[in-house]
Amino acid sequence: MGVEFDLREEVLSNKSPMLLKMNPVHKKIPVLIHNGKPVCESLLIVQYIDETWGHESPLLPSNPYERARVRFWADYADKKIYPAVRAVFLSMGEDREAAKKENIECWKVLEGELGDKAYFGGERFGYADVSLIPFYSWLYALETLADSNIVEEFPKMASWAKRCMQRESVAKSLPDQHKLRDYIMEHRKKLQAQ
Amino acid sequence: MGVEFDLREEVLSNKSPMLLKMNPVHKKIPVLIHNGKPVCESLLIVQYIDETWGHESPLLPSNPYERARVRFWADYADKKIYPAVRAVFLSMGEDREAAKKENIECWKVLEGELGDKAYFGGERFGYADVSLIPFYSWLYALETLADSNIVEEFPKMASWAKRCMQRESVAKSLPDQHKLRDYIMEHRKKLQAQ
Repeated sequence: MGVEFDLREEVLSNKSPMLLKMNPVHKKIPVLIHNGKPVCESLLIVQYIDETWGHESPLLPSNPYERARVRFWADYADKKIYPAVRAVFLSMGEDREAAKKENIECWKVLEGELGDKAYFGGERFGYADVSLIPFYSWLYALETLADSNIVEEFPKMASWAKRCMQRESVAKSLPDQHKLRDYIMEHRKKLQAQ
Repeated sequence: MGVEFDLREEVLSNKSPMLLKMNPVHKKIPVLIHNGKPVCESLLIVQYIDETWGHESPLLPSNPYERARVRFWADYADKKIYPAVRAVFLSMGEDREAAKKENIECWKVLEGELGDKAYFGGERFGYADVSLIPFYSWLYALETLADSNIVEEFPKMASWAKRCMQRESVAKSLPDQHKLRDYIMEHRKKLQAQ
């Protein structure tokens, strides 16, 4: 869509007065501020962007059933994948074994849903893909901690991720997998020391 | 909107083959089946209904910022109110004290957001109200278990709920507060016995 923006990073251990003012309810990132007004919660931000600037190249399809379908998978990212990945990263011992299983179940569901489609919505990169591709950045950390080769086990998801990463807008936005892995491993060490 | 529908109830301890087929991922109710195709997850169902049948009397506003705003409060119902109420119902001892506090915090946030508006979206009953009013059915159980008079403490929310309940579509859809309270108290007895 080519919308220009300023990126302000936050130190979550020392949240800025602007973040607390703009998202007083959840006090979380990301927040999109447009014309001085905040839009909070990742998926609501993506829908706002689509409804505000996406007319020429919409992220959501126009058909209500297809809209519900891509919303379902974006919601699945939020409700299932995010907690599953987080649990693998933060849990220890038996809990980690359960988290690893749950995580693999989630990837299986996605692999099945993607099938032979290029993207979750069909032929075009869209809302469900935007919601799911950030997990690609966590893949290296996840493979390390889940003791599994997700790329090999889920070849359709692997090709899909590659396809998404060929888009400049995606490649430029996602953080480096190796840095994230180091960050997670460091964080686990601190947790284990406690 | 006057859309006709057939209601099929589910016994959640013995889910029907139809439910498992129509919502294989979450296996949860509600599911809306339209033209043989399922739409799952409550908030996605409401948006689907609005996009399919709501043209004359839409539940969501047309302005993108207002849309994001009402979506935020519907999402708040899902992410904050539902877990808070559930925690009050299911928790015991110290956990229940924490849950009671969290629950009152949520109601404070809603009371503040509603302010002097008739509905969460403004002058008209809409998407955020549809998402929040089901909690009204749990109010009697909640007051019993949270040892607080929510109706007195949150007069704006109480008037809002009354206003919503004057709508036939709302009054006819919500379950009886007393029956729900009895159900919850019975369920707690079983939990305590375990």
